[in-house]
Order: sequence, then structure tokens, then C-alpha cells
Amino acid sequence: MQPNIQFGVDYYPEHWPQSRWETDFAMMQDMGIDVVRLGEFSWFKLEPADGQFDFGWLDDVLALAAKHDIHAVLGTPTAAPPAWLIAQHPDIQPVDREGRTRYFGGRHHDCQSNPIYRDYIARFVRTYAQHFGKNPTVIGWQVDNELGNSHGGLCYCKYCQRHFQKWLREKYQTIENLNDNWGTAFWSQGYQDFSQIQAPKITVTGENPSEMLDWKECHSDLINEFHAYQAKIIRQYSPDRFITHNMMGFSPVVSYYNLGRQLDFASHDQYPSGHFLADQNSFRGDRCAAELDFIRGVKQQSFWIMEQQTTITGWEVMGRLPKPGQIPLWSMQSVAHGADAIVYFRWRSSALGTEQYWHGILPHSGIPGRAYREIRHFMRQTKPLLKEINGTVPRAKVGIVFSYPQDYAIDIQPQHPDMTYVDTLMTYYKALYRRNVAVDFIQDTADFSQYELVIAPLQYLMTPTLADRYAAYVQAGGQLVLTMRTGVKEANNLCMTDAALPGETLGQVLGLTVPEYDCLRDAAVVIDWAGQQYTGTHWADLIAPTTAEPLAIYGSEFYAGTPAITKNQYGQGTAYYVGTELTDALADHLVAGLSTVAAETIATPAEVEIVHRDAAAKRYYFVLNHTGEQQNITIPVGWQAYFSDQDSGHLAPYSYQVFTEETN
Amino acid sequence: MQPNIQFGVDYYPEHWPQSRWETDFAMMQDMGIDVVRLGEFSWFKLEPADGQFDFGWLDDVLALAAKHDIHAVLGTPTAAPPAWLIAQHPDIQPVDREGRTRYFGGRHHDCQSNPIYRDYIARFVRTYAQHFGKNPTVIGWQVDNELGNSHGGLCYCKYCQRHFQKWLREKYQTIENLNDNWGTAFWSQGYQDFSQIQAPKITVTGENPSEMLDWKECHSDLINEFHAYQAKIIRQYSPDRFITHNMMGFSPVVSYYNLGRQLDFASHDQYPSGHFLADQNSFRGDRCAAELDFIRGVKQQSFWIMEQQTTITGWEVMGRLPKPGQIPLWSMQSVAHGADAIVYFRWRSSALGTEQYWHGILPHSGIPGRAYREIRHFMRQTKPLLKEINGTVPRAKVGIVFSYPQDYAIDIQPQHPDMTYVDTLMTYYKALYRRNVAVDFIQDTADFSQYELVIAPLQYLMTPTLADRYAAYVQAGGQLVLTMRTGVKEANNLCMTDAALPGETLGQVLGLTVPEYDCLRDAAVVIDWAGQQYTGTHWADLIAPTTAEPLAIYGSEFYAGTPAITKNQYGQGTAYYVGTELTDALADHLVAGLSTVAAETIATPAEVEIVHRDAAAKRYYFVLNHTGEQQNITIPVGWQAYFSDQDSGHLAPYSYQVFTEETN
Amino acid sequence: MQPNIQFGVDYYPEHWPQSRWETDFAMMQDMGIDVVRLGEFSWFKLEPADGQFDFGWLDDVLALAAKHDIHAVLGTPTAAPPAWLIAQHPDIQPVDREGRTRYFGGRHHDCQSNPIYRDYIARFVRTYAQHFGKNPTVIGWQVDNELGNSHGGLCYCKYCQRHFQKWLREKYQTIENLNDNWGTAFWSQGYQDFSQIQAPKITVTGENPSEMLDWKECHSDLINEFHAYQAKIIRQYSPDRFITHNMMGFSPVVSYYNLGRQLDFASHDQYPSGHFLADQNSFRGDRCAAELDFIRGVKQQSFWIMEQQTTITGWEVMGRLPKPGQIPLWSMQSVAHGADAIVYFRWRSSALGTEQYWHGILPHSGIPGRAYREIRHFMRQTKPLLKEINGTVPRAKVGIVFSYPQDYAIDIQPQHPDMTYVDTLMTYYKALYRRNVAVDFIQDTADFSQYELVIAPLQYLMTPTLADRYAAYVQAGGQLVLTMRTGVKEANNLCMTDAALPGETLGQVLGLTVPEYDCLRDAAVVIDWAGQQYTGTHWADLIAPTTAEPLAIYGSEFYAGTPAITKNQYGQGTAYYVGTELTDALADHLVAGLSTVAAETIATPAEVEIVHRDAAAKRYYFVLNHTGEQQNITIPVGWQAYFSDQDSGHLAPYSYQVFTEETN
Repeated sequence: MQPNIQFGVDYYPEHWPQSRWETDFAMMQDMGIDVVRLGEFSWFKLEPADGQFDFGWLDDVLALAAKHDIHAVLGTPTAAPPAWLIAQHPDIQPVDREGRTRYFGGRHHDCQSNPIYRDYIARFVRTYAQHFGKNPTVIGWQVDNELGNSHGGLCYCKYCQRHFQKWLREKYQTIENLNDNWGTAFWSQGYQDFSQIQAPKITVTGENPSEMLDWKECHSDLINEFHAYQAKIIRQYSPDRFITHNMMGFSPVVSYYNLGRQLDFASHDQYPSGHFLADQNSFRGDRCAAELDFIRGVKQQSFWIMEQQTTITGWEVMGRLPKPGQIPLWSMQSVAHGADAIVYFRWRSSALGTEQYWHGILPHSGIPGRAYREIRHFMRQTKPLLKEINGTVPRAKVGIVFSYPQDYAIDIQPQHPDMTYVDTLMTYYKALYRRNVAVDFIQDTADFSQYELVIAPLQYLMTPTLADRYAAYVQAGGQLVLTMRTGVKEANNLCMTDAALPGETLGQVLGLTVPEYDCLRDAAVVIDWAGQQYTGTHWADLIAPTTAEPLAIYGSEFYAGTPAITKNQYGQGTAYYVGTELTDALADHLVAGLSTVAAETIATPAEVEIVHRDAAAKRYYFVLNHTGEQQNITIPVGWQAYFSDQDSGHLAPYSYQVFTEETN
Repeated sequence: MQPNIQFGVDYYPEHWPQSRWETDFAMMQDMGIDVVRLGEFSWFKLEPADGQFDFGWLDDVLALAAKHDIHAVLGTPTAAPPAWLIAQHPDIQPVDREGRTRYFGGRHHDCQSNPIYRDYIARFVRTYAQHFGKNPTVIGWQVDNELGNSHGGLCYCKYCQRHFQKWLREKYQTIENLNDNWGTAFWSQGYQDFSQIQAPKITVTGENPSEMLDWKECHSDLINEFHAYQAKIIRQYSPDRFITHNMMGFSPVVSYYNLGRQLDFASHDQYPSGHFLADQNSFRGDRCAAELDFIRGVKQQSFWIMEQQTTITGWEVMGRLPKPGQIPLWSMQSVAHGADAIVYFRWRSSALGTEQYWHGILPHSGIPGRAYREIRHFMRQTKPLLKEINGTVPRAKVGIVFSYPQDYAIDIQPQHPDMTYVDTLMTYYKALYRRNVAVDFIQDTADFSQYELVIAPLQYLMTPTLADRYAAYVQAGGQLVLTMRTGVKEANNLCMTDAALPGETLGQVLGLTVPEYDCLRDAAVVIDWAGQQYTGTHWADLIAPTTAEPLAIYGSEFYAGTPAITKNQYGQGTAYYVGTELTDALADHLVAGLSTVAAETIATPAEVEIVHRDAAAKRYYFVLNHTGEQQNITIPVGWQAYFSDQDSGHLAPYSYQVFTEETN
Repeated sequence: MQPNIQFGVDYYPEHWPQSRWETDFAMMQDMGIDVVRLGEFSWFKLEPADGQFDFGWLDDVLALAAKHDIHAVLGTPTAAPPAWLIAQHPDIQPVDREGRTRYFGGRHHDCQSNPIYRDYIARFVRTYAQHFGKNPTVIGWQVDNELGNSHGGLCYCKYCQRHFQKWLREKYQTIENLNDNWGTAFWSQGYQDFSQIQAPKITVTGENPSEMLDWKECHSDLINEFHAYQAKIIRQYSPDRFITHNMMGFSPVVSYYNLGRQLDFASHDQYPSGHFLADQNSFRGDRCAAELDFIRGVKQQSFWIMEQQTTITGWEVMGRLPKPGQIPLWSMQSVAHGADAIVYFRWRSSALGTEQYWHGILPHSGIPGRAYREIRHFMRQTKPLLKEINGTVPRAKVGIVFSYPQDYAIDIQPQHPDMTYVDTLMTYYKALYRRNVAVDFIQDTADFSQYELVIAPLQYLMTPTLADRYAAYVQAGGQLVLTMRTGVKEANNLCMTDAALPGETLGQVLGLTVPEYDCLRDAAVVIDWAGQQYTGTHWADLIAPTTAEPLAIYGSEFYAGTPAITKNQYGQGTAYYVGTELTDALADHLVAGLSTVAAETIATPAEVEIVHRDAAAKRYYFVLNHTGEQQNITIPVGWQAYFSDQDSGHLAPYSYQVFTEETN
């Protein structure tokens, strides 16, 4: 159901006079736009009073689109319930952890478990899908917007509390079972009945980590169910259209794996400059690459970019202006990692509201400028390529395990103040990125045997099943990398008490136990590896090898001389254990010694990225120069230049080249 | 109605035993005090129970004042409603943006739109003004205290919400008009009715900048109306007395221009050390000077200092102890910039309450010390001078435009995290201050033709009328300096969409357009000007000149070589455009090249300030040495020494000299 | 009633399967454990439903303990009211200063003035004490846990407000008296009636410091009364058992002097690594020593450690791993400063709840490791010593005054942003610590004549009685050190107004007045002392000597050349005044010149501590090497080695030695 479409824009005709629409569509068509996303925040315009629907203006927009050979993806505007609804039912407004209502005036001023809000949504979406669902211009749908965003501070209202109780009742069946799994013997937190459980608002001090993990899981499930609630209606009234969703990379709220199961394909909002609040002064090509690979991994298939940055982003404050070439380069990076279509955000910088400085292809004045010219050139040049590679993905030999429960649990107890799940994963990803080795992000339920090397950092929550799967993978010849804080907890976030860390099974796979550990806080520890000195940070496991061979050893602290990184033969395979947080140089040393990585490495200058997609008998190589300087690489024998703008292997600042190679 | 009065103190007899009052007044009279401000926080003492007034003690105070030839300014104590009133009507207490009540226990624990509070005020002020209004000792009034202070976090209670709705109804008449002006098409924020609009409390994420601007304007109007409500009663019962108000320089809450229209003259609270929370380790003579000039600009006339710092300021923590000479020097700086009277804060350090460490002329012990001696000497020496110059102001040839809506709008969207309206204004002011060039702060509705040079930074909100006024000023021969972020918005805080920045009219006046811009964040940009290298910060406009001539050009970033500062002949005048935030050296280069500035410059060592006031045929020059070292200047021919403490032109640390010069 | 017991552990059998208990007790007995603390957080397990008590499991635990010759201290679990109680009476949950309820989910989710909570406590504690009170295994009791902890943010609910009104009525009798003592003439804060007084929640701006002091005193009294409420019931039903409480050093909430009066002996929770949130990368031996000395001072007798750190501490994040030897060393430091018994926290790292990473002797796995081995060795080696010295304390010749009201008042108004009462005390303590001079912390009501030297920093709140006591002490020959900010306030936190600082009496004792002062903020001031240059920080009093002799003088600022530190003969004694905050070198210079200090000094390398306890005719010296290096000291003639692990005077890293010396 994923159509062969290449380029789009997010278009908000309701922000502009109707007299302008024709001009906009004509300009889009001229650029090569295939699709517009429409409607995602326009509830009030579509239902200006309770039960009174006004779809005429959107009919007109769709007609204009059709006239210009442009398709449409319709968003449901449920992220922005109108003022009349809030005025009638103010408790739709969410309540934060401190008990404060968060009021109308932004977006997502809603509680997703509120039954009245749900009723209004059902009516709206049904009416909307009935009206537009079979319009031939409409090819697909997006439910709400960036689900999980804006609700980082979740909702703790009475409806959410009831919902949490219900979710827990279904999960645990009996209150005794919940008490056991939450460890409520600690601090006398036992419950007699599910009705006594509160949404976890601010306490005097401390939290129950098992409860907090369930709260996060429950919230992820709620958001998924919120999506399903709308998607079911849409599928009923709008057959043969796709449903996708604009995800946000490693956003830590909702499980995209679960959401992905509801979708025809995944989409991603790609803002290399990040949100304006973050430090966005320097481009982080590796993080962007990882998020693209991760989104590809949601369904292990190619995807769309639903919002691709066009120029300066910002709300109250703004980020830097992209350099000439960066916007096409970033677009091409999205393509290189598996995007089939690029939908630019947004057509024209909004004159209205919070996002006045989250700019679009056209500036406020509507006068085409540099962003317009660069994007138009990119579209014209790459459209044939995108058609050709539609649906392809790379064949990666390395898998990195990403798991939402691990992310949630490390967030609840970071253990070291600066330790995060994603940062630790990125340590490994970046080392591979610097060697241009293709990576898949995979679930811990994936078929590991498809990969020569599996890297699974921070396997903090552990089950016997998962431990057995890792053991079987290594037994059968796989290479596995595990790290500190593995096997610490049961799935319910209670500490494992049966055996020394990392647990019986993994202890055998790795050939070691971890009887003690040191949280390094602001200190660093020296690591010696084959005569070279490196630095470990955040954490140091004190490792007692049984059969493991030390690769690197600590060179400072009272445990100097004991192993920091080990290797163990287990069955036909090899298991590595990393007892500290790796600095870049140390991560480079580690991955360089892994046979798969060595074989896959393509050397390039720093921040020159090579990535590929594999068609039936052809591999497409994308060479991306993220630097502001000219860069030269040696083109391997057998690569054919696909574009001829520049001499092959000679890349101007912020430019790209594409090559093909025949593959059997 | 502004009397020829020179010196006063803020006196709180209610903090001290009645037996002490006579001593205090005798000491004041001996010093040369003409006036005391009384009563501003003593509601409970004056109305100790609901409807029971006890004015006898204040009668006694006024009688004692009269006996010692001292006048009185009476404050209305409405900034401190008593506990009995709050206990009866707890919802008088204000509610902050997070929905938290702010309780009794400090001051300003009131909502200025609360109707019950208003009723109590009306009764109190009427009774108070009836009783004291014609007392010959009472020469004037102050309503409340530092209006806009303490309410920085405004009030968001139900009364304020209703008030906001009413204010909006009056402004916009129809809800459709409001929807258009607020751009509610964005994020589905449209309203069917004014009653649906909430006070803008915390949201999940984001705000509507147009709504926020109206909220600030509405609040400023409310405070002005709150003043008018009391002033009307006072004028009825206390004829032939002045009403003034103690303002706080560039305080960003209430429009002092509007407040000034209600006053006979403006007053200012001058604390060079700042509030204790701010960094007050170093004296900022330029900022003090600017605030004094600004207060003079409120009504374009001379003013009072209603609270002049006497020594250490502080609440829970304190600032530095002023050096010998600094208190007289700061007093003289107030005079030099247009103060006719100096009222010192306060007579004696309070033994009670929050402000125990906001010290007075006398220490807690009542034993006169250094502050007393320095101030007494200053008063005796300068009283004749103050009588002579009463009512005079300088004749400035340079005007800097200050506008509250611009200040509000930049505060809502600073665009760069460190950009503020006042700081950007100060960049220009300080460059002029370093050259001792007299400046008027003016409204954007002022008669620009009175000035040879008008500097109007950050003209962010723009109307056709204002653009035309700037054009006409230049056309007729004026010199105009405009900057980055000019013409970005309409008056309703929606983005201008009709033309490229800075808009049609100003684009012609300046001879350029601004098709792109770069928010520099933590970076700086090199600026080349005639072979010299400078630095620009925060912002860089990419300028496309039409007729403008580049003065300075960017020396780094991809736009190196393009103009950063330009000059354009337009009609009989010249318009300058500055596309970046100026560092001091760059600002110096800019202003030195402006003919008016060059002509008015008087060179002095750093932090030696010269400023003047113009009487009918005589100009008074004040030379102020803000440094801790001896400083020497060359006295121009024609200057006559007014004081003879020191050799003319030879200034001891923290000292001043006054000169006169005959003028036509 | 303090038994001769040496070692214990905090044990939570309810966290583990019953099948494990026997193993645990057998291991404890093998180690040498005498006592377990039980039950302090297990309300729900003991009263699983309203009025249904289940004490059987604890009977079993006590029987097992008895079987292994282990005694028990029972805690009352009132810091953790169960969910069923909160569900029935949600307003037991406390309300913070911002008006936010703090919910169930951690601990101390209770308001100690709530009458319903009190009723439930009374019933629980009565039933509990009836059941266990005469069990021969039970030797003592602990009420609640770390009273004052977790309630740092106090409670501001309606019950607390009423309680505060009642407390004030008892203290002041009439509202006029309260108005006078609170200085409510300031900012019109006068009350007609006690019922108008609110709990001091957040204001718009500012607070009344006199009210805040009463609020803190009231809260301390409430917590003490909360303890007494339970202790009375326990004493009724459990005769001949001790009651102690686990205090937390200089914790600033509840007066431990008052609490101590209810106890048979004091106890302390000793965590040299601090809580995980603090910077705990470096060991602060001086601060640990001071807190131990302070706890000894609570009752001027030896004490217990109720929680002694065993290894890594932490909640969501953790601290550093103790080095080999540090745990025994820290245990020995506790002993050296007066601990008779060491109860380790906790037996085994909890698998459950918030404190999963506040580790115990055994790791989660239960497999004994390094902590177990080090502690077992320590216990076996030192048990005979502890039996021998039970009940002894040092005889100190130096007393440092510690006063809760001073601590409260400086916290309310620090005056300098970085000034705290404890830090200023520590300046003096640390200088004595570096010279191994024994110190007692004493109340300001203590018999000063027992000490040759009394150091009383920041005597901010002053009464005529206290001034007279200091005068009498010096008159009779004592040495007294007073500092800046002495005599500033009356006991009611109103400023003293009768005389120049530091008041009439102390001015005579010290031979000076302080007419001015300078809050140095970020600046430092040069101090010249006998040709050597030092630095003073935070504060500089400008001192006018009458009879005092300057010791050190300011060497910078406009008051250079005036005294900074003075000495005055008064009667038979000497009074020193210190006008600035001392840096370490300056404090060393000061104390070295005090005759008592010189006589008591024992020189050691840095961070090698010597401290003693005095038995009838024998003194025990403890030499503690807090460094990671070998340290050597010269053993004085007459010292006998008590332990023979190492050569006398040669101390391995993190090791200790004990010596004895015959006395009289």
C-alpha cells in the first residue's frame, strides 16, 4: 500500500487566504511536488461548532490539488481540540505530575483517556473519514501528530488514574500479584485493592521503580490504543488508503514497535538542527543517521520522511541558518538511510501562532529564496533515483538491539547521573558510523541469526527467555557484545537476586561474574589495551573472569590490573563484555577488532558518510560530505557514478554523490 | 503643580515608638529635609478593623512634620491589604500562571481586578483623602507603590480572566476579528465567543504570541486603570495637590507613558546597586544614566527621585557597601539627568520585616554614621543649586525610541536566547554615553523633527503609519538608525507577509531587503569596517542592497563579503541599517561616524560622565567621576566653576564638580 | 539503660522469603552481630487492613533472632502509613509550600499534625507495644525514622495551619503581643486574631523573618511532640527498654537537643559518602568527625550509630565504591568519636523499591563479598575494645556553641548568598581538627566554665541573658571567640535597635563597636596579620575599637588599615572578635594563637586524624589514616599499642591504629 511517491510538502491552506491557494499549488506542481499533508491541526475550521461540520473549504483544497496532479495525506486534527469543546468540558485538559492543569493555548491540551474527548473524536473522525475517505486525491492518513510528543509530562488526571488501575488489573489479575511484582514490602507500599493505586504524582521523596516502569508502559499502551481507536474508524470508511505516522526518532515515550504494527509504513520527522531549545550549533550527522536507521527498523522496511527540515527552525528562539547545500544534503541523507519519500515541512513560513519561526520552503513574504531554489534543484535531480530505489533497504550484517523497556528503566534509575540508554547505544553506533558500516536497529525478539554481529548495550532488564536467546545466538556462532548493567533486574524492575551479575546463563556465555561495581561520577578510569591507554567513564564493573579472556584492563583505581573488557568463546561464537562507558577512541579500538566490522569498513575522512541501499542486483552508494570543506575519497573499482554534477570522489562542501555497483 | 522642593526622606513612623518621632523630625529638619513620604504601606494601622478608621496617629505625625517645616507626600497603602480583609475574602489573593495562589505574608498579595478589593479601596481612599486631603502639610500623593512591581507574575484568577475577556471584547468587537488578529487558524485555536478565552495559564507546550501581547497590554491597561480609580477620588477630595508615582526605570510591566499622562510629574526609585538578587558588585553608571533619562522622557520634563539609595540594599542577602563619596555622587547623577528633588530611602533601617537589610540613612541603632554625614553634607552644599535649576532639562539632539509593545513582543519571542529589547537599546545608549552625548528617550509617536538623529532599534512590530513617519523624517533631512528585526510583525504580532523584510516603505528608506537571516546562537561573526575587524553577536541579517551603500561587511560565515551595516540617502536625509548586535567597539565606530554625535562629543576618561541641564540662558555641566581613582579633565573655555571644593577639572575618587556656561 | 552492645545490622526480613531468614540469622551470628533493628517501615505487613493486625511473622523473626543470640530494636513504622489508610483519608498526605499535595508512593507521605493519622498511630503503637513490649529479645525502640527528614519541605495543610495558630496562641497569649514580636507594622501585616494567620505558603514577594522563625520553631516542636506521643505509649507497655532515635548530624529541621531529652541515648546515621545527590567523590573526614562530635553533644554522652554505611549508597543514581579499608576506617572513626555500638545499614541490598542501590553488607545475590569480609574482620578485631570503652567520652577543653535558632535564622536570611551557620562553624572546627584538638559541641545554655575556650560563631540572635552569660564567662577567666553578625537580632528576629552592634554588653566584653559592614559578595578582602597576608571572604565588619587590640587588619578596600580581628582583655579573661569569614590559612593562624589550642595540638600529616576517648584511668587514642597513601607518625612516649596488625606509627592506606595511655 506504500505508493511510489517521492516529494511532498506539509501544507496549511487554512493559514492563508483562499485567493492564494491556486498560486501555491501551481508553484508546488512546478517544483515537482507529488503530495501534500493536510488538515492535521484544523479541527476548529472543520467543526466550528459542536456537531456542525464545515468540510467545504477542504473539498476545495483537494480539488485544487487534484487539478495540479497532487495527492493528499489527511491528518486527523485530534491534537488540537477546539476551544468550544474545552469550554464545555474543561477536564479534558491534562493534569501534570505536580497536579497542575495544563490549559488550552498551545496544542495537545487533552487527556487521551478522557471518555468525553474520545466520544468527540469518534464522531469527528467518522464524519471526516466518511466525507473524505474515498476521495481519489486522498491516498493516505495520519492520525493525530507526533504521538507521545507534548505529552512527555503525561497526564495524571482522575481518568488516567482509573485507566492505570484498569490496565494493572488486566496485567496482574490479583492485587497480591501486583504487590509481589512491585516489591511493595518496601516502605509499606502494599495495596489491598487496585482502587487504592494512584497515578504516580509527586511524592514527598522517592518513587517505586517497578510502579514507574508500569506507568510508562501503560502510557505507551494508551497512546497506541488511542491511535488504534481512530485507525479503526478510518480503515472502515477509507479503504485502500495507507495509514502512516510521523514519528520522532528515539523519542522515549511511546513504543514505535507497537505503533508500527498498526501502520502500513513508518514515517519520521527529520530535523537535523533539532528543536530550538537544544544546542543546534553543530550538525550531528551520526545522530541523524541513527534515528533514520532506527525508523527503518520500526518495521524493517523503507519509510517516509513526513517532515523534512527546510531551513531555520525555532519557536520563541531560533537555531542557526543552514549553510548552502545542507538542506539537499540532509534530504539525501534521509534517502540514503531508507526514505522513499521526502515531505518538506512546511510550504510557507507561518505568519500565525507559536511556530512563526519554524520556517518553510517559502519565507513569510512568499518570495522564493535560497531554500526554494536548493530544494527544487534537489527534487529535479533525484526524482528518477527515488523512483528506482523505492522500497529498497540496505542489507546490514550488524544489529544493535533497541528496547523500550530498557530505555524506560534506565530513565527511571540512570544510576550514573549522565547515563542514558540512547547515549550508550550511540557510543557503539558512532564507532560503526565512523567506519561506514551499515547497522540495523532490532528488537530483542528479532531473529539474531540474520546478523553476524549483535550489539546489545545495557541489557538491564533480563528474562530467562532473553538470556537463552542470547546464549543460543552465540552458541550457534554469533558474535555478541554485552555491557555493564546487564542482568541487573527482572522484567518487573525488581533486582535479580538468584545469582551474581550478570546472572547464571549470561555469566556462562560471557565467562565471568561481576561481584562489585564503581559508579565513577566525575572521575574517569584509565583503560590499558595492548599497550595503548584509553579512558572509561561513568561506570566500572569489577569483573571476575571464569573462562573469559581479558582484552583491556583497568589502569587506575584500586582495581587496576583487573579486566575492563573481555572476550569469551562460547559454543561456536564469541561473547564480548564491556564493563565501562566507552570513549570514542576506545569504542574505535573495540569495533576495529570485530571481524565483521573490519570486513565492512569503508574508510573516509571525518564526517564524510557512506551508506547504501540494496536493490535486486544493484547496490546504491550515497557519499555525503557533512563538512564545510572540499573532501576527496578514492572510488572503489566497480562503482558507477549516478550523478555527474561533480568529479567522482571530489566532493564540494555540503555535497553528495551517488554511485551504483552491480551485485549478483 | 510641581513644587520647588529639594530633599526628602521616606519615613515610616509606624515602625517606631511614638516617643521617637519628635527626635526624628528634629534631626531631619537639621539636615535640611523638606518633605517626607508617609503612609504607603500602613493600611492596617489606618483601618485596624473593617470600616474602623484610626487616623489620629497620622494626624500627630503631620503635626510634628509641620512643626519642623516639613511637608508630606501621602501614599495610599493599597499594596498591602490587611489580614482581616484577606481572611474575609481570600480570593483577593492573586493566582500565578501555574494556578498557584500567592498568599498573604509579603506585599502586593492582591488581584487588581478583584471587585471586592476595589470596593474596599474606594472606601479607604475616599475616607483617607477626605480626612487628609486639605491638610496644608500634605502637598501631594502617591497611589500604591511601584505599580507593576511584585506583579511581574501577574494574576490569572477568575476575575482577571473575565477582565481579559471584557478588554478583548472592547478591543475587537467581534470574535471573528479577534480570531483574525490572533491567527487562531494555527493549531485550531479559534473561539466562538469571548467567554471561551482563558487567562493564558501554563499550557502543555507553546503559546500564541498574539494572545500573549494582548495579555501584556491588557495588564498594563489594568494597572493604569487601577491608578486612575484611586487618583480620581484623590483629586476630588484633595484639590491643588500633585499626584506622582515612584516608577522603576525600564521595568517591563506597565506602560509609564500611559501612567505619566495621569501624573503631575514622574518620580523614580533610583538604586544604583540594584536589587540584592542581581549582580551588584560593580556600578553601572551607564544603565543608571539611561534609566534617569528614560524617566525624564516619560513626560519630557524634570522629575523627582522618590527613593534614592542611601547605603547597602538587600533582603535575605545584601549587596556591597557603597564607597565613601558614592552616595552623594549617585544623588548628583540623579540631579544631573533631570531630578528636581531627591527623596532618600529610608530615614532609618527597619527593625521589622522583609526589608530589614534595605538600609536607611540611620542604622538600626539610630546612631548617625557615615551615610548620614555624607548625605547631610551633600544636601547643604547642593540645595541652592537645586533651587536654581528646578524644572530645567537638557536640550538633546539625539532621540532613542523606546516602545512598550516592542519590549513586550521581544520578551514573548526573544528569537535569540540572549536578546532583549532594553539590552539592544543600551548598546546604542552606551556608545553615546561614552562620548557624553545627551540623549532623550522618546515615544514612536514623538515629533522626530526635534532631533537631528533618531535611533530606533528593533522596530519589530510595524504599522504603515509608523513606517511612513520614519520615511517622512528621513525624507525631510533626518538621520535614522534602524536595525535587524525591523518590520517583522504587524501590530497584532502576526508576521508581515506582504513584502520582503523590512517591508515596502522601510525597504525603500533603507535601500535594501533582508531575504535571509542567521540566529548566531553561541557563535560570533566577524565584521570588517574600513580595514578594522569587529565582532557581531546574536544575529546576522543577510542584506540585499538596492540603493544602500555598505559601510561594514561580514568577514566570516558563508555570507562573508555581504553588507552588515549600510547607509542610504533618502530624500534629504540618511538611513542606516544595522544587521547584527553590536559589540561596544563596533557601536563606537558606528556612532563616531554620525555627524551629530561627532559634534556633541565631549571626551573624558572612562567612567567620567559629563551631562548637562539647560536653564534659560545658562547651561549647567555636571562632571561625575564614577571611578575609585583621581581623574583629570580639561575644562573648556567658558565654563565657570559652581562649587569650589576641588580644583576645577581635578576630581577625587567618587566626586563631582558643577560648572555653568552662558548660552545665548 | 544503654546496654553494652557492639554490633548490629538493620534487617528487613519482610523484603525476603521466610525460607531465607534462618540463613540470614546464622550468618549474622557467625559475624558477631548482637542486635538487629526491625520493623521501621512495615506498617502494611503488620496491619494489612484497618484494625487487623498480623504480628505472627515478626514473632517468628524475633524467635529466630533469639535462637541466634541476637537482640532486637523495634521501630515504629509510622513513616509509612499504608495505602488503605491514605485511600480512606487522603488529606493525611502533606501539602507543600506551593500548595501541592505530595502523594503516596515514597515515604513520609503524612502530615504529622493530622488528627486522624494520630488516632491510627495511637492504636497501632499501643497494639504493637502491648504485643512486643515485654518480649525479652526486644531491648529497645526507635520511633519513626530520621524525624525531620523527608519533611524538609514541611507541611502547610489546614491542620498544620490550625496547629501553628494554636502554638502561637500559647506562645504569645495576645494578638497584640504577636504583632509586636513579628513587627507586623511593616507592610501592614497586623492581625486582629490568631485565626487570621496562615501557614506561610508562597507569597507574591518577600516573607516576614520573625514569622518564618516561629514557623521553624513550631515545626521542630511539632516533630518532638510527635515523638513524645509515641514514646509515651511505648514506655507504658514496654518498661525497661531504651528509646533512641536515628539522627542525621547537622540536619537543620528538628532540634535534636529537645529530642535528646526524650531519649535514653542518641543515635546517628553515618554515611560518609553522603546521599547520592551530593558530591560524594571525596571523603570529608572533618565533616564526618564534626557530625559525630555533635551527636555526642546532644546528650553529652556516648551514642549509637544506628545506620553505618556498608558500601555504595544511592537511589536513582549512585556514589563511588568505597576503597579497600574505608568501611572499617569509617566504622572506627564513629567509635573514636564516641559510638558505643555500630549498627550497619543494611544486611542485604534490597531488591525492592526506591533504595535498591542503597547497598547492604550482602549484595543482591546474597553472596558474601568484600564488604562482608572487611566488616567481619573489623567486628572480630574490635569487639573487645568496644566492650572496654563502652560509655566513655573524651574530655574536651574546647567548646563550640551550636544553636538551632541561630541555624534557622541564618537560613531565613543568609545575608551573604553563600553564608550558612554550619559552614561558618565548620571553619573553626576544621582548624581544630587539623590540629587533632578535641571539641565538644555545646548549647548556649551549657556551663561554659567547663571549657577553657568557647567558640561561638554567628551569635546573630541575642538576649540580655545570653550576653550576660558570655560576659560572666570571660570575666571569670574564659577565652571566648565571637564573630561578625553577633547581636544583630533580638530572639524574635527583629533587629536590635538599642545600641551599636554587637550591643551594649558584648561591646564591652569585646571592647569595640561595629558601625558599618560590607557584604563582600564575590569579592575577597586582604587580611594582614603580623606581616602575613591572608584572605577574608563573604563579609567584612568595619570595627571601631574602644579597648580592643587589633590582631589582624584589612589590607584592601577603603577600610584598609582598620581591624579585622581583635582581642580584648575583659576581667580575668580574653574575648576575640572575628569580623570576616575565615579562609583555612587564616583560621589556622587564629587558633594557633589560642593557648588552649596550642597545648592540645598533636601534629599529624594531612588527613591523618587522632582522636581519643577517656576511661577512668586510661585514655584511648585512635589514629585514622583517611588517605590512600602510607602515612607515618611518631608515637609519643607513654602510648601503648592496642592492636598489632601494623607497626606502630606506620599506617597503611585507609587504616587505623589504637593506643592507650595511663592517665592520672
